[in-house]
This record gives sequence, C-alpha cells and structure tokens, in this order.
Amino acid sequence: MPIGLLIVGINGATANTTVVGTMLGTERELHGGSIINALPRNLVERFPHPSEFVFGGWDSGPDADAFDLARGYAILPPHVLARPRGSRIPVYQPIVTRHDVRELVAKYPFRPAQDQVERIREDIAMFRAQNAVSQCVVIYLASPGVEVDSEVHSWDADAFHEALSVNDDRITSSMLYCQAALSEGCAFVDFTPTATLEIPAFREIAEREGLPIAGRDGSTGQTLLKAVLGEMLRNRGLRLTGWYSTNLLGNNDGLVLSRPEHSTIKMSDKRDVLAPVIGYEDFTNLVEINYYAPRGDNKESWDLVDFAGWHDQAMSFRVNWLGRDSILAAPLVLDLARHMFVALRLKKRGLLDYLDVYFKRPLGKGWRPFSEMYGDLVRELQKDCGS
Amino acid sequence: MPIGLLIVGINGATANTTVVGTMLGTERELHGGSIINALPRNLVERFPHPSEFVFGGWDSGPDADAFDLARGYAILPPHVLARPRGSRIPVYQPIVTRHDVRELVAKYPFRPAQDQVERIREDIAMFRAQNAVSQCVVIYLASPGVEVDSEVHSWDADAFHEALSVNDDRITSSMLYCQAALSEGCAFVDFTPTATLEIPAFREIAEREGLPIAGRDGSTGQTLLKAVLGEMLRNRGLRLTGWYSTNLLGNNDGLVLSRPEHSTIKMSDKRDVLAPVIGYEDFTNLVEINYYAPRGDNKESWDLVDFAGWHDQAMSFRVNWLGRDSILAAPLVLDLARHMFVALRLKKRGLLDYLDVYFKRPLGKGWRPFSEMYGDLVRELQKDCGS
Amino acid sequence: MPIGLLIVGINGATANTTVVGTMLGTERELHGGSIINALPRNLVERFPHPSEFVFGGWDSGPDADAFDLARGYAILPPHVLARPRGSRIPVYQPIVTRHDVRELVAKYPFRPAQDQVERIREDIAMFRAQNAVSQCVVIYLASPGVEVDSEVHSWDADAFHEALSVNDDRITSSMLYCQAALSEGCAFVDFTPTATLEIPAFREIAEREGLPIAGRDGSTGQTLLKAVLGEMLRNRGLRLTGWYSTNLLGNNDGLVLSRPEHSTIKMSDKRDVLAPVIGYEDFTNLVEINYYAPRGDNKESWDLVDFAGWHDQAMSFRVNWLGRDSILAAPLVLDLARHMFVALRLKKRGLLDYLDVYFKRPLGKGWRPFSEMYGDLVRELQKDCGS
Amino acid sequence: MPIGLLIVGINGATANTTVVGTMLGTERELHGGSIINALPRNLVERFPHPSEFVFGGWDSGPDADAFDLARGYAILPPHVLARPRGSRIPVYQPIVTRHDVRELVAKYPFRPAQDQVERIREDIAMFRAQNAVSQCVVIYLASPGVEVDSEVHSWDADAFHEALSVNDDRITSSMLYCQAALSEGCAFVDFTPTATLEIPAFREIAEREGLPIAGRDGSTGQTLLKAVLGEMLRNRGLRLTGWYSTNLLGNNDGLVLSRPEHSTIKMSDKRDVLAPVIGYEDFTNLVEINYYAPRGDNKESWDLVDFAGWHDQAMSFRVNWLGRDSILAAPLVLDLARHMFVALRLKKRGLLDYLDVYFKRPLGKGWRPFSEMYGDLVRELQKDCGS
Repeated sequence: MPIGLLIVGINGATANTTVVGTMLGTERELHGGSIINALPRNLVERFPHPSEFVFGGWDSGPDADAFDLARGYAILPPHVLARPRGSRIPVYQPIVTRHDVRELVAKYPFRPAQDQVERIREDIAMFRAQNAVSQCVVIYLASPGVEVDSEVHSWDADAFHEALSVNDDRITSSMLYCQAALSEGCAFVDFTPTATLEIPAFREIAEREGLPIAGRDGSTGQTLLKAVLGEMLRNRGLRLTGWYSTNLLGNNDGLVLSRPEHSTIKMSDKRDVLAPVIGYEDFTNLVEINYYAPRGDNKESWDLVDFAGWHDQAMSFRVNWLGRDSILAAPLVLDLARHMFVALRLKKRGLLDYLDVYFKRPLGKGWRPFSEMYGDLVRELQKDCGS
Repeated sequence: MPIGLLIVGINGATANTTVVGTMLGTERELHGGSIINALPRNLVERFPHPSEFVFGGWDSGPDADAFDLARGYAILPPHVLARPRGSRIPVYQPIVTRHDVRELVAKYPFRPAQDQVERIREDIAMFRAQNAVSQCVVIYLASPGVEVDSEVHSWDADAFHEALSVNDDRITSSMLYCQAALSEGCAFVDFTPTATLEIPAFREIAEREGLPIAGRDGSTGQTLLKAVLGEMLRNRGLRLTGWYSTNLLGNNDGLVLSRPEHSTIKMSDKRDVLAPVIGYEDFTNLVEINYYAPRGDNKESWDLVDFAGWHDQAMSFRVNWLGRDSILAAPLVLDLARHMFVALRLKKRGLLDYLDVYFKRPLGKGWRPFSEMYGDLVRELQKDCGS
Repeated sequence: MPIGLLIVGINGATANTTVVGTMLGTERELHGGSIINALPRNLVERFPHPSEFVFGGWDSGPDADAFDLARGYAILPPHVLARPRGSRIPVYQPIVTRHDVRELVAKYPFRPAQDQVERIREDIAMFRAQNAVSQCVVIYLASPGVEVDSEVHSWDADAFHEALSVNDDRITSSMLYCQAALSEGCAFVDFTPTATLEIPAFREIAEREGLPIAGRDGSTGQTLLKAVLGEMLRNRGLRLTGWYSTNLLGNNDGLVLSRPEHSTIKMSDKRDVLAPVIGYEDFTNLVEINYYAPRGDNKESWDLVDFAGWHDQAMSFRVNWLGRDSILAAPLVLDLARHMFVALRLKKRGLLDYLDVYFKRPLGKGWRPFSEMYGDLVRELQKDCGS
Repeated sequence: MPIGLLIVGINGATANTTVVGTMLGTERELHGGSIINALPRNLVERFPHPSEFVFGGWDSGPDADAFDLARGYAILPPHVLARPRGSRIPVYQPIVTRHDVRELVAKYPFRPAQDQVERIREDIAMFRAQNAVSQCVVIYLASPGVEVDSEVHSWDADAFHEALSVNDDRITSSMLYCQAALSEGCAFVDFTPTATLEIPAFREIAEREGLPIAGRDGSTGQTLLKAVLGEMLRNRGLRLTGWYSTNLLGNNDGLVLSRPEHSTIKMSDKRDVLAPVIGYEDFTNLVEINYYAPRGDNKESWDLVDFAGWHDQAMSFRVNWLGRDSILAAPLVLDLARHMFVALRLKKRGLLDYLDVYFKRPLGKGWRPFSEMYGDLVRELQKDCGS
C-alpha cells in the first residue's frame, strides 16, 4: 500500500521539486542530499523507498499541473523534465486566514475556523480513499506566517479548542492544517518558521492521539554552516566577536521574506542558531535577507565571521555559498516523510526530538552543535534497529 | 617545581611567539585559542598553568634575544612587547643533518649522528639542572624536512640503533632530537610534518622507556575547516566533487615550503585530510602553497568546494580565511606541553592517540571527522578525572 | 605664509586622521593614496606641500586634544603617534540645527540662524588672524544630515537670505557653514552627502564672490570600484543584471548611518553611481550599510555583480574589499584642500567641475565612468600649466 | 557575397561555440559580450552582420559534426541547440609540427613545412571557391604552443623563407597557417599566445601583401580586470604590493595548460599585464592555472590584491570571478573577424594596433590601461567614419 504525502503549499518551488523530482527521478538521482541515504546501510533499509509515496496537497491555482509548473521553475534539469509525466497530482483549494500572504488573502474568502478544519479533513479523507494509502503525512510548506502573541504561544488544547469555537482571529492557517491532520490520524511536520508546534496545544493533542509531529523550519544550508563552524570555533577555544550573514534569493520565498511582516520570524530563526552553539551571547550577530531577482532559486549567501584568538588577536573568515534552495530542501522533505512513516509504524507519539538535526529551530532539545543533533538521530535509529 | 619546555627551532615565529607570549601575557590574553581552556572547568583544572613553564631550545643564532626577535616578528601586539622582559631564554646550538634547510646546512658542520645525540642529551641535562625542572617536554618545531625512503619508514629500534652506529646518512635531525629526548626521560612532540614518529623505532622506545609521544603536524586552521566542513557534507548526504585549496604565506615557513623538496610532505598532509572524513576518494583534490611576501605571518587561504546534491545538481561554496599562523599555533603548542606534562605525571606511555585532534596527520587512530577526534579527547580526559 | 584648513567635524575619525597624519607624517608616508601625488611630476609641483597647511575646526568637546584622540582612534600606526606632538589645534564650538545627529542636538542649544553664521565668521576671522594665513579652505566633514525638501532644493540666493532672516527651520548646519565660509572669502568643500551645494543659492553666491566650491560626498573605495568595473562591463558589451553591495562599518560613521534618517541620502548616493556609468537602469540595484562593531574603522564590503553575455548566458563576479576608511579619505581631503588653494590663487570661481573624480555625487558634469572624470582632471591641470 | 571565416582548431570549445552560436542565434542572443555592439550606433553600422559569415576550418576528427560537438560541450543553452541545424561546416585535416600538443602529434604525420603550407593554401582556395566568399579571415584558435628561441624571434621574411626551404624544425604550425593565409590574400588573427606575430617576418609579409594582421592572445576576463583595477590603483595613488591570481579550468584548455611545456607562455602573458598598467615592477606577482575537472567550461578565478595607502597602511581586495570561457571569447572572435573584414575593405595593411584592446599581449603599442586601449579603438573607428 502506498504512503500518502500531503503538502500544504504544494505548488511552491520546494514542494513542486519534491513531488516532480521524486516521481521522475532515478535511484541514483534521488540518492544525494538526503541524510537518511548517507546513513549506514542497515539503517537505510528500514525506511520506505521514495517510490512508495503518493502525493497531493493544497494550493491556490488548483488547475495548475505539477509537471508544467516544474518546467516554469526550471529547477530540475531539462533531461529529467523531458521524461514521461507521472499521474496527475490532486491539488485542493487552500484555506486562508488573515495572517497569510497578501496574494492569498486577496483571492480566497475567510470562513469560520471550525469550517476550515472540516474542509481540510474532508480533503484528507478523500485523498486517502482515492489512493488507498496506508499511512498519511502532512507537511506544512506554505509561505512563512507572521508572529503570534504570547497568549497564543501558551494555549493548551482546551484553550485552542475554545479559540476555534469562537473563531478567534489570532488562529493561523498552519494551526488549522495541524489540527485537521491530527484529527485524521496523520503525522504532521512544520518545515516553515511558524509558531504552531511551539504552542502546547498541538503537542498535547499529538500525545493524546498517539501521533508523531516534528518541526520547525527546515535547515538547508547556511544555518547548517553556522552549526558546524560555530562548534569548531567553540571547541577550538576561538572567541566569536561577530557574525554577519547576508542572503540573496530571487524566488517567491525571497519575495515574501523581503516583506518585514513575514521576515521577522525567519530572521530570528536564523539569528538564534549561534548562541546555543557558541555558548555565549556577547558578539555582534546580524542577518539580512534580500530579494534579488537575477538569481531565481539559485540562492547566494555571504557570511563574515570575526573571531579572536591568543592575545585577543583578531582573525576572520568568509563563507560564500552558492546553493539551490529547492534542491537542498526537497530530499529533506522526503526524508522527514520517511521518518514520519516509520514513526507511525512504530507508534511513536508526540514531538520527535531525535529529528532536531533537520530544523533551524528544533523543538526537541533545541538547537545544538551539529554533531550532537546528528548523534541523537543516529543513536535513536540504532536503538529502533536493536543495534 | 617548574616544568621544562624545550623547543627545537625556538627562534622561529611560532616558537618565539609561544615563549614570549606566555611569559608576557596576562591570564585573559593566554585564554583564547586553546582547546584545553575551552573544556569544562573541572577538566581544565587538572592542567598546569602556563606560568609553571620554563623555556629553552635549540636554534641557530644562539645570541639572539627572544624579546628582540619578537619585536622583529611583530606578531604579538606592541603593548604586550612593551612590558618588562622576562628572564633570558637559553638557546643551544642546533645539530644539523643533510636533510635540513639549506641555510642551516651551510652554517653548521655535520658530525657523527651518535655524537649529535650526546650533544643534545648534554644540553637537556644542563637545562634541567639549571632550572630545577620537574618534568621536561621536547617539542619539534623546526622547518619541515624532506621525505625519507620506505626502508627508513620501517626501522624498528634495533635497526635505528644500527643506523646510528654506522652514521647512516638517511637519519634526520628530528630523529636525533627524539632519540635524545627519550633517552633523557622527556616527552616528545612532533608539531611538524616529519616522518619521525611514523617510524616504529620511536614508538617502541617510548613504550619501553614509559614515556609519552605525540604527533604529527599541528592542525591550526585550514585543515580544521576541512575536517568540519567535510563531515557536514558527508552527514548531510552531499557528494563532494572537488576541493581546491590555495595558501598564501609570507613568513619563513612559506619561504621554505615554496621549495619543492620541503613542500611535498606538507602538501600531502594537507591533501590527505579529506578522504578519511568524506569516506571516498573520487573527487578532485588540489592543494597549493605559495610564498607571498606582502602578508608576513598573516596567512590568507581560499578554498573552493564543489558538491552535488539531489538530482546531481552542482552547488559550491568558498571559504576565505585570514588567520595568523603563529597566533593560532602558539596556544596549541602550549596545550600539547600541558597534555604531555599530565601524561608524564599519570605515567602514560607510547603514542597518545587521544591527542589526534591536535594534528593534521594524527598518528593515533588517524585523521577522522573533527567531532570524533574531539570526542576522543574529552572522553579520555573525563576518564582520567574519574568523571 | 601658511594656508588655513578649517574642518567642520574636526574630531571625527577622518578629519582627525587628516590633521594628525599630516602633522606627524614623513614625506614618504604622506605620498600614498593621493590622486595629486600620482600625477606627472610637472603637475604635482604646482600644488602646495602638505606642510604648508595649518589646521583648525569645529566640533563638540573643544578641549579634546587631537593627538590624544588619534591614539584613541588607533588608525595611524603607533610608531607615528609616538613622535613629538605638533602645535595644539584650535577647536571651536559647533553650531547646531535640528537636522544634526541626536547626540549633538542634545548637547548644544539652537540659536537663530543668522547669529550662527556670525559666530562661524568670527571663528574664521580669529583663526586667520592668529595663524597669519594667506588663504583659507573650509571642508565639511560632519555627520551626514537628513534629506531636505524640494522647495529648499530650489532656493536661490535671495530665497536663502530670506529663509535666514526668518530663521526657517529647514536650514541645516552645513548651509550655515557654507554661507559663513563664502562671506569670509574662503573656499568651501562638502565631503559629505548633504544637499547644500545642490541648492542654487550657494553656487550663485560663490560665483558672485569669486570663490571656488566643490562637492559632494568623497569617493573613497567601493563607489570607485563601481565606476571602473561598471565602465568595463559597458565597454565590453556585458549586460549588468544585478549589483548588490553590502558595507560593514564599525566606526561612528557606521553608527550614524545605521539610523534610517541619516542613511537614506548616503544609500542613494551609493546606488546612483551605477546607471550613469552603465547607461541603463533595468537591473537590480541593492545597497546595504550595516553597523558592525568588531571592525572599527577597518571597513569591509562585499559586492555581488551579475551580468549576461553572449546568448544571454549568466556570469558573475564578487569583490570583497578590506579598506580603512579614514586612511583612504584623509589624502583626498588634503588633495581637495590643495586643489582649492590653487583655485583661489588662479581666481577660479563657482563649482569646480574638474574635481568630479573626487566625489560620489559630483555636482559638476555628474557621475560618469572613472576614466572620463579622471581625464577631465588631468586636462584641466595641464591647461592651467600651459602644457 | 558571404565573408569567409576559417578557424584553426575549429572543433575546440571556443571555436565551436562561435560557429554554432552564430549560426543558430537570434539577433538579441548575438548582441551581448561584443565590444563592437556596445559602440555608438553609427559606428556599429559599418560592420558586417554576423549572418554574413560562412565558416570552415581545420581540426582533427574531420568527420565530427559541429552541432553534435556543441551538444557535447553543453556551453550553448539547450533551447538554442534544439533549433534546426544550419548547413554542414567543412573541416580540413590539420597540419602538425613537433610543437603541437601530444595528442595531435601522435595522430598525424609530420610533413615538410613547405608541403604543409601548400596543403593549407589548397584548403583555403577550395573553401573560397565552394562558398563564393568575398573576403576571407583566418583565425588561429588551436592549443597554445611552446616557447620558441630568440633566433626564431628575430627572423625576417628572408630568414623565415630560408627556414621553410630547409624544413627548420623550429617552425610551428601557427607560422605555417599564417604564411598560407597571407599567401592566399586572407587576413590573419592570432587569438592564442603563440610567438608567431611577434616574429618580424610576418609583419613584413603582411605589409608587403597589403593585408591586415592582429594578435595576440584574446583577453576575455581576468586579464581585463587587471587592466581596469590596476589603472584604478595607479590613478588613485594606491601602491600595489602584491597580486595573486589563481584560475580553475575544467575544459581542454585547462588540461593543456596544466602541462608545464604549454603553460609557460600563457602564464607570462597573464603576469605581464600588470607592470605596464601600474608603472612599476616591485610588487609580488603570482599567477596559477589549475586543471579542475568539476567545472568544465565554467571557469572560476580568484584574485587577491594587496596595496598600501596613506602612511603605508595595508589594504586589500579580492575578486572572485565565475565566467564562461567560450561564452566570453566567442563574441570577441566574431568581433575580430568583423574588424578584419572592414580592414580588408579599407585596405589597411600590417599589424592593426587599434585592436590592442582585444588582446592580453597586444602587439601594437603594447598593453596599457584599458581606457587607453579602448580609447584608441574608438578614435580609429571614428576616423574611419569621418566623424
């Protein structure tokens, strides 16, 4: 039986690349960029193969065909896109709250929150039935939302249900997708920087329903560099005095993040990864995100790192990164779906803290040096294996 | 009772910076750039304080005063060099073999190898007596030698003693210093890329004499980056396709390394650090070392790293490092002296493999990802501590 | 007879470096970084020698001694600052308008504009008398102001005098210094990005009084790169698609420019230098200025340049610049003083357009490729020479 | 009537890109990267349109089809290569001397030099006849040769003819192509770093035959940067202390240049461009060329530039260039063919010094600041125009 992977924001560059790349890719092409595939062979074997997944999701423009979109994105290479198309991907109409990006808000009507949850549950049920899926994972990949206030941050399950019943307008769409997914027995992953999984309500519901959740904000490139290079400076006894990061993105992500209301939360996720790795906070810490059209999905970043050594002598290094956002993110999205499927099978419940290594703001034990987070993953998988 | 630190090549930039910087530095100035000082407090406390060391060594120009030399090097900041001088550092006349750099060979006569060993032993004994030292560590910091042949590489203790007695001209000066140090009950560290500690003879002698040894080739900057960034690529499933490193050095080290007969061994140390971390060898691997006068001791390096991710899509990053060679190396030299003192006290014998993290070509378990080598160090120290 | 150089903001890093560096520097030390000194010898000879200048200026903290300040700035090297001090530099109390940086506004009272002009004139007259100067140049080097409105931008001499008489609060301090300087027969240079010399009033007054003026916003580093690299792309037929510049400054300039009210005008000066060189405007053009404490006066900048060539194929280059702001600016300030002295001697009047090469927003023929602006300078000087 | 363009080494990446790119490209696609096309419109109009050219040349593998080769090179974008093929390009068997790259030497027999010249003349005559060309330009684009000795460097026409008649084995194949081209009334351009056009013989022959020649070694990227950035440093009075350049090439050019016998001449061309621009020689000047397979035709280079300013303070910048060698070179090859056609029409004879701007080692007035060489080009074209 196939495994269902439902993606919120399925027509975005990363989601589309994940879906189309998985459907058209060869074994070899799907190997790279995956943390799972680089594990020892005996651990890899316990995960489902990418070909076992069937895809669906929500987005505006439900008539857009995934393969046509992929051609427009031009992220996957032409020889891959020239292969015979796979089966059509079902795209459901998105639900919208006032916190979503302005283009979406302009296009779709607001409805009472409780109705929206019902709508999503019906979509999931239909997808399950039509594809005869065994288990189903919902991954949130829509544009990053705006910050929520501290009261929302402390909602427990009762408070959230109360908010739902009165249609509290502080509810965001990611909360509604999460609630619907858990109600339908699906695992839920937040690959974006929303506050949803930080709210006690959802951990409580996941625990109670016996379902796994994981998040938040996939760690694809520059943040990873901070985790490993920061760890090196700390262990080597070199004192960080300043870290400046600038990011140039020409894709839709870059456009949305160039709007202050959406960038705040992302910037803080990016900035907050240093102090826990370094172990102190008294250094200059700047992060910039710029929308830079000439680059499309081919992100470029530049980091300047200043540090002091013996006799306080100043030294520095710079890292200039030319990555491809969706190519880096897609295998991680797939990895997470594979992890969630295994977790569903092993009946793991609540927040999976051994997946911290996948996230910029991991909600398990929090951000730590890369080698610690990676070590936790390997240990858990070996334990599952009885090895 | 003070601890003796005898340095072969004590007038070189790194050795001079270590000696003068330690003698004139404040607590705070000596803190940075040390792996020991960045450990948990309970581990740090078991190491001797830098002020417990007395210094001496061998070099040409025995009349040169360390503090005058330091002013010429201009590596330590002027306000440190303006402080009252410490006591005079004894500098003994170096011994020379035909493998040494041409300037040294031109200046000092060759003598029979066995006589040279005796000369060094007398120097050590005199230094011990005059300074009332408890324990003594000899660190080799002279210019890198030339490659030795494979027969020499396999000498056992008997073969080496035989070679010594017939004055075999394949014997290098670092072997003579090592032999003399072990005969005088000193610990021995090779901070340079010579073959000495790879020869079975010296491990055998160290085991037999109950003395600790460690090497080879201190890892100060760029190599470290390879260990941590290579580890990141491997664990993240990104396939390395090419790594190009270029180094620009304007100090004496750079000048010597610009001579092909001395650079071969250093280049191979630098190149060989990648495959063991990455786990495969089929990538382009280039290393350049250039003598570039405008920079003096302020080294600059540039690395280009090419890798492939999902669907074999090419990505890359560059690291541009502005380090200060002697400022990075000095606290490691001091760290190693402190480790050797503790090892002497705990009667550790033979090659100390938990010190692998300090070297470019570690002779313990060999080069591995930084987090593994660092983990070995921490575990050994915790074991010593009973924690 | 000495030449007077009066600097508004004389205690700032650039002004202080200019004054102290000129007074203590040797012939050789003062040679580098000057456009004048790199001209053919017959042209250089017509300019006054730096030792002919006497210095004074306005700033808060009138009791601060220039040589003490220079030690604090640590821009000039210690061996220069260790030389015997020159004579004391007179520092007059600054005048303040509501457009100045908040620290200054908090410290000094506003007074009627006309009174302020009188105060400055008295300072100039006293400086002239006490130093027996032949000619006097006033250079504006205070913190960049805020934008003025379009009505102010079009004031002619009558309108400005009317504004002065009614104490119009849109008058900025740079206008008052300019007015006072021209009334006292001094040349006036605006080395900062204020609007003053763009206002018709001051060109009119300079013409009428027979005095030379020049501006605006000294071009010290990154902008120059844009002028020469942009010119290269244009002449080579390579189409610019994007230019991103980020600047990291840790000095007071960086701090003031990190405040939006002061950065607008500077950013536009930096951004506006590309289109006139390239010849079109349809490219992405981003400029960032960041206050980055670890660097002090040692500025770092990074530029990313994207361009398209044959068959629209995308290519790019990056420039990473490590400059020293005050070291780059000081010899240009001195150059401008030397030019103004020659201009006073030759009775040149009004805005000197052959000095465009010195400015980011030249008010003569406007910003153009570097080789054109430099060519204009050389031609004018040759004409003056009769060569 | 069409214009003939015959290329020596027509199956190499640059030549193939020039031929196929011109035949398949649209007006817009052929616009970029050309110095001619960026000139004022009235000057551009005097040049032939790229569509007026017919192509042919010499290379090994005469059966290879240019369009198939272009697919293999993957330099032109897929949508261009998917267009209907143009007419077949005639490829003649190359002539070979012992100075050519070893693969060629292994494949083709040596024949007497005079016979080789005859063979080339016959090829040219056949090409002319079959394509009814009006004028014909021969451009040398084969792999760079080895250095010739100083006697050869001073051959006049008589000495060369004498050498030809005795089959002197110091004769290189580029000399034979040049001799044949001039004998057949063609213009000749050397786009590579061979010594041919430096030998007095060929200028003498070109003058006598009334034919134009131009060379040597096309300036496509990094060298150009040296011309403009070096000029900036000089005019700005900043003293160059060191310039280090490293080049990473993964194409056949890179492979050949990684062999010391072929790289010497290229490296000296690249190194020699600095001193004439800067005006002095006492700076460190290093150039590296590396064969780096991961990059193919997408060259990457990194330059480090150290300079000193006021008070001898050290500053530096770095330029990291990601170019596409063939995309940069192709429009220059086409430009030169267009210039030679106009020169033939205007009966210009001998070495055309106004084309210096196209070459790394221009044989006219020699290498100078970019703006001077570019200025010479514009002035000559305006003179031709009568404007």
